[in-house]
Parts: sequence; structure tokens; C-alpha cells
Amino acid sequence: MTGERMRAEMGEQPGALGRLVDRFEDQVTAVRAVAREPLMGVVFLARGSSDNAAVYGRYLAEFASGRPAGLAAPSLHTLYDTKAHYAGFLVVAISQSGATPEIVTVCRRLRNAGARTVAIVNDSDSPLAHSADAVLALDVGPELAVPATKTVTGEMLAVAAVAAAVGSVPFTSEQLAAMPAAVEWVLADPDPATELASRWVDAERLFVVGRGLLYAVALEAALKIKETTGVLAEGISAADLRHGPIGVTGGGVPLLVLDGGGPGHDDLQAVADLARERGAPVALCSDAKDADLPLPEGVPEALAAFPATVRAQQLALALADVRGLEADAPAGLTKVTPTK
Amino acid sequence: MTGERMRAEMGEQPGALGRLVDRFEDQVTAVRAVAREPLMGVVFLARGSSDNAAVYGRYLAEFASGRPAGLAAPSLHTLYDTKAHYAGFLVVAISQSGATPEIVTVCRRLRNAGARTVAIVNDSDSPLAHSADAVLALDVGPELAVPATKTVTGEMLAVAAVAAAVGSVPFTSEQLAAMPAAVEWVLADPDPATELASRWVDAERLFVVGRGLLYAVALEAALKIKETTGVLAEGISAADLRHGPIGVTGGGVPLLVLDGGGPGHDDLQAVADLARERGAPVALCSDAKDADLPLPEGVPEALAAFPATVRAQQLALALADVRGLEADAPAGLTKVTPTK
Repeated sequence: MTGERMRAEMGEQPGALGRLVDRFEDQVTAVRAVAREPLMGVVFLARGSSDNAAVYGRYLAEFASGRPAGLAAPSLHTLYDTKAHYAGFLVVAISQSGATPEIVTVCRRLRNAGARTVAIVNDSDSPLAHSADAVLALDVGPELAVPATKTVTGEMLAVAAVAAAVGSVPFTSEQLAAMPAAVEWVLADPDPATELASRWVDAERLFVVGRGLLYAVALEAALKIKETTGVLAEGISAADLRHGPIGVTGGGVPLLVLDGGGPGHDDLQAVADLARERGAPVALCSDAKDADLPLPEGVPEALAAFPATVRAQQLALALADVRGLEADAPAGLTKVTPTK
Repeated sequence: MTGERMRAEMGEQPGALGRLVDRFEDQVTAVRAVAREPLMGVVFLARGSSDNAAVYGRYLAEFASGRPAGLAAPSLHTLYDTKAHYAGFLVVAISQSGATPEIVTVCRRLRNAGARTVAIVNDSDSPLAHSADAVLALDVGPELAVPATKTVTGEMLAVAAVAAAVGSVPFTSEQLAAMPAAVEWVLADPDPATELASRWVDAERLFVVGRGLLYAVALEAALKIKETTGVLAEGISAADLRHGPIGVTGGGVPLLVLDGGGPGHDDLQAVADLARERGAPVALCSDAKDADLPLPEGVPEALAAFPATVRAQQLALALADVRGLEADAPAGLTKVTPTK
């Protein structure tokens, strides 16, 4: 059994998310206190797994506020010396360690360029926390496994608080309170991931497909699988898959389809059918009775992102396991990546 | 010899780009006439290859204007019914056909939400052209091969005109006038791509790595290779590669590094060295004397994106060729993709 640390940290998620749910309204208040009116837009700033939490935030924040949201291109500010004008924008910098130099530098530059800034960090005594107008601390405890798990779902919940601060999010506080139990439900049932991993033990390439609010989870699932196994997994939206890459599925490349029961459902089903017709093995993560990776029923799509992310973690761990790889410390990766 | 149409359309690029260079200032004027002051930001809207031109535009437009630029998430507007507020924003919709329903719908919605809109199309009598405040027509003639080539470089030049309309771009008009000759120089020299394709004939996975202004070219190179060959190519920034996916290179997955001689040069070199240390075959596309895919010297990075894109087209075509595949009409792909 490999990945003991990763498994243990995954198991801490219901508790960690529960504590963040308790502080959700406080985090909303903290963001509202620094976001100026009128808000022109929201820009997320992150790398690695945090970048996937940023994509989740980008969808939720634009949905909530109606204002354009997007991801920063750090190199414009670290390498190209762009003369930025960010007045009216909220910049949300996300870094588990709060110590990635690139993220700290860009956060400071955009703050100097007029943006109000929020740092989402696990360590509230970090350079990034000291560079922002407001700090949303995850306080999920140290994360020792290289593949990030509890910090990613924690970051996703924190960006949901940012979205709630700038508009109306597509879930109720009762539904939010029930989310950690949905994550617990998934963690109590690791066998589907083990079973799928054994079917896909020989896959060297795979696609993880999402749409809309679960697109970010597809990216995170792919990154996690790449990190733990070296398999070239690509996260992609169902719409983008049709525009070219669907051709790859003809070679028998497996497809994991993430369906949170949102308005992209029909499109995801259609892409799954297309891939099956082309001979690709397709696995489904949804609340359908016969799903390969089941999700609990009755969870609104925006919150289904959390149990779906945990399903992806289980699959990444199980794929490493069936290949005899050590998921906790993949060769060549370090916890804090010194990009500049 | 396969891919006759694709090859012919690639060969039309110097002429097509030359005509667009002649109309560059007119296009700048057309965009300035509709962009309202103060500009708050620029949002690009596209799918498929056009999405890669959008990424190129996103970097150039933010560099030029200092204002946040980004990519739209179409599903927020087609599936989630987001109540958008886009006053102050310039929306740039890019579609070769001008007929992708999703892009037309979102362009109309964002215009109704207060954005000024620019359509970049090859067909100026298309639904998208009729849905925008200004139209930048490529007029590069019909494109019959499924893998887009001349329309992509045409779109890149049109988004450069958008950037020049909102600020100062990092090249002179003399350098712009010389760009089509740089593309011609590459087209006259197809052997390096053929040679590289024969070395990588067995690769089922590969990375194309860029940074900054050439990141978009890495995405386009990967998409083109996926389309023509079914190889699972992933375009990635050098910075993101370090944050996890570098682990995949240990398995001997080849890396094509695109270096336009910009400020990301050192980072790209370092990532290439890291990958080599891990046993991955690395090929370089740059103006270095010993580059695997040589670029002409003396071209500023923003314009080196054009010959580099053509190098990627040559490689995609050559990889299909050595595998005996028909690049012009890959199985399962159609020219106009009906995403909603």
C-alpha cells in the first residue's frame, strides 16, 4: 500500500471542510470588507493544483457577480514588466504555502496597480498573506504528501466564499452545511476507484472531461493522476474535446466523464456516446446508480465539485497503487515549486 | 504523401499574412472606433484553434493596455444563464467560419450586457460578423483541410491589431512588414520537421512547452498534432510543467520547447535541462544555430509566434506523414463544430 500520507490527508477533508463551512460567512465578510464598489471584475492568480481551484473560482465568481472573471498570466508581470492598471478589480491569489515567489511578486504588483487583493493560503504567516488586503486562511494543517488534496478542496471552498462575497452563489447555506458529509460518503467507499484503476492499469494516456462548474475538477483530476502516476492525463471541457482532440479517443484512450448533474449534462452524455462509438473506454463519475465513480444524490452541481474532486483523488491514488508507485512523493516533484 | 490540402493552405500563409499586414492599420482603426474609453478589460471568445489565437491575443492585449485580459467561459452564458455586466469591456469573438452557434450566442449576449464587440472571421457575411460592432475579416480564402492553418495565423495577426488598438505592442511596423518573409523562410525549409517526425515516429504522448507570448503557440502546436495524428500532445507553460506534470517526462515522453528569444528564455532552458536529466528527448524550436526546428534570426518574440506556429504545422503534417495518416480529414472531425 503506497500513498499513506496522501490517503491520511484525504481522510482529513470532511473535518477540515466542516471547519471552513463554519467560517464561511466570516470569510465572505472579510472579502466584502476589501472589495470596492463598483466591482469591475475578478482575477485569480495561482499555479499547479491551486490553479484548478482558481478555475472553479473563476466560474463561480463570474456566475455570482456577472462581471468578467479570469486567470492572471503571471509572466506578463514577472517577465514582461507590463504596466498594469487593475483599479476596480479584485485579485484572488491562491497558494497553499503562500511562498511561491512568482505568486507573491504578481500579487504585490497588481495591488500596486490598483487591485484589491485577497490571499488564500494554508499558512497565514506567509509572504503571500502579508502581501494582500485580506487573508482567507485554510487552517487545514500541514500537508506533507506532494499531491495536494485537503488544501485543494479547502481552496475551492475559500473561492466559493469569494464568489458569495461578490454576488449570489448557486447553493443554499443548508446545502453547504451538508457538503462535508457528501465528501465523507465518498471517502467511506474507496472500492469503485480501485476497481476502475484495475481496469485502466495499462492506460498511459487518458482524458478527464467536464463542463461548466466541474471543468475545474476535470483539470484537477488530470493533474493529480499525472502527479501520482506519470500517466499523461488531460483535463478538457466537453466542448473543447469536440473541437479536435476527440480524434485521439479513437485510439482507445479512456475517458473519465465528470457529471455533476448541471446544465452540461446532455453535452457530457453526448460526448461520452461519441467516444464510445469511437471505441474508447468511458467511465462516469455522477450520481447515477450505475456510475463507475458514484456521487451522492441531491448535491447541487457547484457543491458536487467537492465529492467529485475526492473521487479523482481516490482514482489517482488507486492508479499509483496498482502500478506500485509511491504517490506521496513522486520522483522529481517538490512541495514548494520555485517558479519566478 | 498525405495532407495535400493542409500543405497547400500552409503555403498560402506568406501571401495571406502580407495582405493582412497591409490592412493592419485599418483594422487598428476599426477597433479603436468601437472600443469605449475608459477600457476596463478585454475578453476573448473562441473554441478550438481560434482559442489558441485568443490566448495569444490575451497576452498581447494585456501587455499593450495594462488592463486585465482573459478568455470567456462560454458555458456560463449558454448553459448557466449568468446575468452578465460587461460595460467597459471589449469582447473579441474569433471564429474562422463565423458560424459556431455557441460563439455567436455568447457574443450577442455579452454585447447586450454592455460590451463592445469585435468579430474576427474569415467569412464577413457570417452570423458572427452580423452580431458584432466591428468586423476584422481575414479574407484568406476558403480553408478546406480540417486542421486550421492560414486562418490561425490570420487570427493571430488580427488579435495583434486589437492589441495595437488598445495600447502599445512590442514590435515596430517595419518588423511587422518583415514577418511574412520569416514565415516564407520557414516554409522553404520543411526538412527539419520531417527529420524530427522520423525521430518521434513512435511517440504516443508529447509535451509542447512555451512561456509568455509563445505559450499560445505551444497550445496550438499540441492541438494541431492531436488533430493530425491522434498523439496525445499537451501544450503547457514552462512554469506549469514544473508544478507537477514534469513527473510525466521521466517516462521518456518527448518535449518540444518553443523559445522565441523573449524573457522566458532562461526558464525554458532550465525546464529543457530538467527534462533531459529525467531522460526525456528534447527538441528545440528557436533561432539557435543548432535548433531542431530553426526560426529566423532577428524577429521580435511577439512576431516569432508566427514562424513558430508554422514550424508546428510542419511538424503536425510530418508526424501524420510518417504514420501514414491523412492529415487533411482526420477521422471524426468536421470543419464547423456545432457546440452549443
